[in-house]
Amino acid sequence: MTDNNLTLVLHGKMDLRLEEKPVLEPGNGEVQLSMRQVGICGSDVNIWVHGEHGGYIVDSPLALGHEGSAVIRKLGPGVTTLKVGDRVAVEPATPCRMCAFCKGGRYNLCPHVKGLAMPGCDGHLTRTFVMAADFCHKVPDNVSDGEAAMAEPMAVSVQATNRGGVKMGDTILICGAGPIGLLCMLTSKARGVHAVCITDIDERRLAFARELGADHTINVRGKSPQDVAAEVEELLGDKPNVTLECSGAQPSITTAVYATRSGGVVVLVGMGATTNEIPTAEASFRELDIRGTFRYVNCFQPALKLMSSGLVNVKPLMTHEFRLEDALQAFETARKGEGIKILINCHKETQGR
Amino acid sequence: MTDNNLTLVLHGKMDLRLEEKPVLEPGNGEVQLSMRQVGICGSDVNIWVHGEHGGYIVDSPLALGHEGSAVIRKLGPGVTTLKVGDRVAVEPATPCRMCAFCKGGRYNLCPHVKGLAMPGCDGHLTRTFVMAADFCHKVPDNVSDGEAAMAEPMAVSVQATNRGGVKMGDTILICGAGPIGLLCMLTSKARGVHAVCITDIDERRLAFARELGADHTINVRGKSPQDVAAEVEELLGDKPNVTLECSGAQPSITTAVYATRSGGVVVLVGMGATTNEIPTAEASFRELDIRGTFRYVNCFQPALKLMSSGLVNVKPLMTHEFRLEDALQAFETARKGEGIKILINCHKETQGR
Amino acid sequence: MTDNNLTLVLHGKMDLRLEEKPVLEPGNGEVQLSMRQVGICGSDVNIWVHGEHGGYIVDSPLALGHEGSAVIRKLGPGVTTLKVGDRVAVEPATPCRMCAFCKGGRYNLCPHVKGLAMPGCDGHLTRTFVMAADFCHKVPDNVSDGEAAMAEPMAVSVQATNRGGVKMGDTILICGAGPIGLLCMLTSKARGVHAVCITDIDERRLAFARELGADHTINVRGKSPQDVAAEVEELLGDKPNVTLECSGAQPSITTAVYATRSGGVVVLVGMGATTNEIPTAEASFRELDIRGTFRYVNCFQPALKLMSSGLVNVKPLMTHEFRLEDALQAFETARKGEGIKILINCHKETQGR
Amino acid sequence: MTDNNLTLVLHGKMDLRLEEKPVLEPGNGEVQLSMRQVGICGSDVNIWVHGEHGGYIVDSPLALGHEGSAVIRKLGPGVTTLKVGDRVAVEPATPCRMCAFCKGGRYNLCPHVKGLAMPGCDGHLTRTFVMAADFCHKVPDNVSDGEAAMAEPMAVSVQATNRGGVKMGDTILICGAGPIGLLCMLTSKARGVHAVCITDIDERRLAFARELGADHTINVRGKSPQDVAAEVEELLGDKPNVTLECSGAQPSITTAVYATRSGGVVVLVGMGATTNEIPTAEASFRELDIRGTFRYVNCFQPALKLMSSGLVNVKPLMTHEFRLEDALQAFETARKGEGIKILINCHKETQGR
Repeated sequence: MTDNNLTLVLHGKMDLRLEEKPVLEPGNGEVQLSMRQVGICGSDVNIWVHGEHGGYIVDSPLALGHEGSAVIRKLGPGVTTLKVGDRVAVEPATPCRMCAFCKGGRYNLCPHVKGLAMPGCDGHLTRTFVMAADFCHKVPDNVSDGEAAMAEPMAVSVQATNRGGVKMGDTILICGAGPIGLLCMLTSKARGVHAVCITDIDERRLAFARELGADHTINVRGKSPQDVAAEVEELLGDKPNVTLECSGAQPSITTAVYATRSGGVVVLVGMGATTNEIPTAEASFRELDIRGTFRYVNCFQPALKLMSSGLVNVKPLMTHEFRLEDALQAFETARKGEGIKILINCHKETQGR
Repeated sequence: MTDNNLTLVLHGKMDLRLEEKPVLEPGNGEVQLSMRQVGICGSDVNIWVHGEHGGYIVDSPLALGHEGSAVIRKLGPGVTTLKVGDRVAVEPATPCRMCAFCKGGRYNLCPHVKGLAMPGCDGHLTRTFVMAADFCHKVPDNVSDGEAAMAEPMAVSVQATNRGGVKMGDTILICGAGPIGLLCMLTSKARGVHAVCITDIDERRLAFARELGADHTINVRGKSPQDVAAEVEELLGDKPNVTLECSGAQPSITTAVYATRSGGVVVLVGMGATTNEIPTAEASFRELDIRGTFRYVNCFQPALKLMSSGLVNVKPLMTHEFRLEDALQAFETARKGEGIKILINCHKETQGR
Repeated sequence: MTDNNLTLVLHGKMDLRLEEKPVLEPGNGEVQLSMRQVGICGSDVNIWVHGEHGGYIVDSPLALGHEGSAVIRKLGPGVTTLKVGDRVAVEPATPCRMCAFCKGGRYNLCPHVKGLAMPGCDGHLTRTFVMAADFCHKVPDNVSDGEAAMAEPMAVSVQATNRGGVKMGDTILICGAGPIGLLCMLTSKARGVHAVCITDIDERRLAFARELGADHTINVRGKSPQDVAAEVEELLGDKPNVTLECSGAQPSITTAVYATRSGGVVVLVGMGATTNEIPTAEASFRELDIRGTFRYVNCFQPALKLMSSGLVNVKPLMTHEFRLEDALQAFETARKGEGIKILINCHKETQGR
Repeated sequence: MTDNNLTLVLHGKMDLRLEEKPVLEPGNGEVQLSMRQVGICGSDVNIWVHGEHGGYIVDSPLALGHEGSAVIRKLGPGVTTLKVGDRVAVEPATPCRMCAFCKGGRYNLCPHVKGLAMPGCDGHLTRTFVMAADFCHKVPDNVSDGEAAMAEPMAVSVQATNRGGVKMGDTILICGAGPIGLLCMLTSKARGVHAVCITDIDERRLAFARELGADHTINVRGKSPQDVAAEVEELLGDKPNVTLECSGAQPSITTAVYATRSGGVVVLVGMGATTNEIPTAEASFRELDIRGTFRYVNCFQPALKLMSSGLVNVKPLMTHEFRLEDALQAFETARKGEGIKILINCHKETQGR
């Protein structure tokens, strides 16, 4: 083990640097982690390319990384639920534990939450990291470090499907066949849905979705929302119970409202423009629920269980792995839209295995 | 009793006529009603003035009326739950009873529903009317015929608050202090909400809302949605759990999203433009639910109970009463925006009492 | 096609007879069915052997059969959703469609329900049968007549898991490895549960459960409820979220309360003694929900979808098939406890294929 | 202000002593409280008279008191949501904030919870007390110290009615007209229930319940559960949607199951024998939910709001007040069953006002 603490730090728009940072000691209820695999998220690329994401502006150096797996290296005082050597998936946000949201079981809405790789709180694209112990989730033996890093985007899909109330026998429309859309499809299938129709404007993505088990795909390029809605109903045999809108694109949001069954749910998973036109009369007359979704709450355990029990296989999505030393090359690859999920191995000894 | 069956019939835009229509006999499971009081709804005025409402166009003569109370005059075969002389409130839509929506407890979404005063199905602004027995709800002795006619708009408020999950201890924002907004306020209070803030652009309406028990009122004329949202939070001491948007106006819909507490609910009760701009990023980040609401399902019984137990007093809203013979004058009064709820007494013998 | 209408009629305790009965014509909204496969239920055997079941006493001749598939032979007036030749699974109870339970989406609780093979309402162990069209559910092409007959016990498991709120990531305890317990296990797995532990006192049944995918099995013979609860926790790594009690046995009911996680759910699926001792203090302190379950409501469609999509394979449970002419031999086989599910083929032309 | 810290300490069965105890300093996130009013609970009397309660045995000195109001005297480090001089109601249990129950919004089920006046954790029948700041709830100005002490039993009724899903239009049966039963009645009314029937074996309690607003009362002495159930249905016009069983008595538990509407809920609020006979067949056939309830979770804020908005008036229940110096006399009065709620004023300067 080494105290060399190589870290990927964003200094501003298009300015990512690998730097040595001090190794921190774990405080009360915290653990020191030896990071393993860390995935690159679309928001990481965005914040690097544009210097901002979703209203957050990078105005001081910020370490990136919020999709990570690790091994426990040291326990802070009072930690009893983990031990040195445990493999964990890191849930990358620590709420205040005291406000009404935290006490009400929706800690993802805590206004005092500290999110990794958000302004004021460094991420874990580094060798050694300190984290609250109870947000480090033990990884089952049959789940690899790379899969454990996938627990974060998986948790997004668990939350999205929770918010949608996705359940056995449902039919589902998913707009957008990117990593989150694909994981939402796999998670929906694991919940017992009958059929999934997934849309995109990229034929290769749709082909990959079919390989992963999509029952129906639609290339929506150049089609009107009403036409897509009609095609969805035709393919599924009825309107879908739930639509998971993962693209953030205005036409898909409109499609979602037209396509979803009366009394059903549209979940806004994707992030696009700040405001969008919604066919509100349609939503009213047919008693739709349009639900926002933000991060995840109590979703890492189910995500890990889905992988451990084999109900969801995320391996086909893990298309690239780079060493932390090559992190900039990894980001460049992500920027080009190559592959699905790109992982960065932060641990010297397990690299290249 | 007479078989004279005076009926108010809409023949087209601005063309309402009082006509004699045949008296129908009740079929299997139906009852023949002697109509008592029937309220005029904003949609009645709309369809009269514009010849259409919410996409429905009047292209053949249509009897109006869908907020009515009555007395049972005759039982059709197989009716066992009512008897001649029973006073009832009429739930003005009959679903198919066989589709997935009907069997799933959401018969208001039945695609085969027949709604009174909707194209193809006459309303009950008439002396004698035939209706499915199980959509005629017995009226408690201490609820008057006029109040029983108010069961319909009350049911709208019960459904809206059901859809919003309005519960004890909540704080509520209501946009729009018209009849539905006011009834939503009274129904919310009956559910144990802690405080209601209600908005409008009409100062007289706000004054009336305060008389009826509004804790806070805001005249939103000329204010931005963000400013109104901030004022609501200031007045209530926190963001409201639920916003019932009863105006249908774009600025109020935007306000609703900004004003509602994270994890809370915006119910779209009012009807305005077909589409509206929604701050979707705000709705996503704060996990709002934006829920449509359509008519009512299983709401007449609670509505009647609220009036019977004294938890809601609708009498202050019943500002005008006209004879059926004077129905055009009643509609003219409604068109001028006078009063709150205008009732038409369809029964000769009880008129003028 | 023939009008010969051979029917299996129970005349009293241990008195089952094959008789010719008249062929009925379908009324309004009804269809005439040519019956295909009909399963024998434990309750059928009970009512035959004891002349009563669950408080129902057979005091006049009653045709048995309530787990059946069929082909549409003739349409009654007004039927538009089915056509002659359609293959259907029969949901064997018709509610009143008008009471508060029917309108509230819980038609299984309708006090006026007419259940097949219940006193006053013949079952469909016959050649030709008349049924309400909307309780005949179209069978997907890739689901066989025998599987379609299994839709009824499958619907029981869908309802039980609905009542239990069984969801992705849960761990589940099932008490009793009979047909219903096994189907509950398969349905739970299809809903994305992480692990199922199933108990019984019969080692062969447990071995079969393991073959079908049980993660853990416990032979509870001679063990105390507390000991079984501890063993369940040990095997699953934590207390189960939900226990589906399918045995009806007092010790298992007690076990269910001790074993289930705080805040979790015990579903009473099995039927045993009229009253049972419940550790109420334990249930209170740990905020358990103990929920009854009765038949099914809106469960046939999901049941058929689970089979059609391959999420549940019921074929291993279909161990025997007899001709209607040999129905008494079929019942004798069921009484001996041989096999899992015994089917009776009511259709001459498809017998023996 | 004085550092004299008079405290009521239980040393064993029937051995209550007033003693001086040290004044503690508030730690991180804690506040030091100057106690005001503290109510005596039935469990306090039980543990004093029997030396044990609900399985807890007093084997070392334990300060009693868990229904208290106070004024903030000093802030520990990091406390920002309260200030010195704030009046608060004390929620008397601190959970771990880190387990699945805490994170899932059910911190009352936290296995690591520290409950005041539970073995290992002193209660606050004392002058000065230290408590986690976020479990001290600010009291609205129009709620007195005595009422604020009632927030604790009120919270029990909020939780019980939450668990029961008590809502507008429901009819409710409450078994037991003691303090908790009465508060459940008042809270149910505040939630908009249509009618409450309450039972007891003590005629004076029933008379008091009628004074407080009970719609119907039944003296169940000598009556069978089935007869009581029939009488309840007769009085309410239908079976109640929800039964709140507050007596803990076996006959009432049986009554609850027979009396409650199909698909309804029985909440086990009262504590009696460890196990009870439940008519499980009845519960199954009619799909009842039998739900335990334990303490409260997120209930103090709604409880304080109900008092502040005037929806619930608890003052008629506050029948006695004693000085802390006279605490033994207060307990003696409680043991005799005099009055409804007995308060002990722990604060010298406000005593006797």
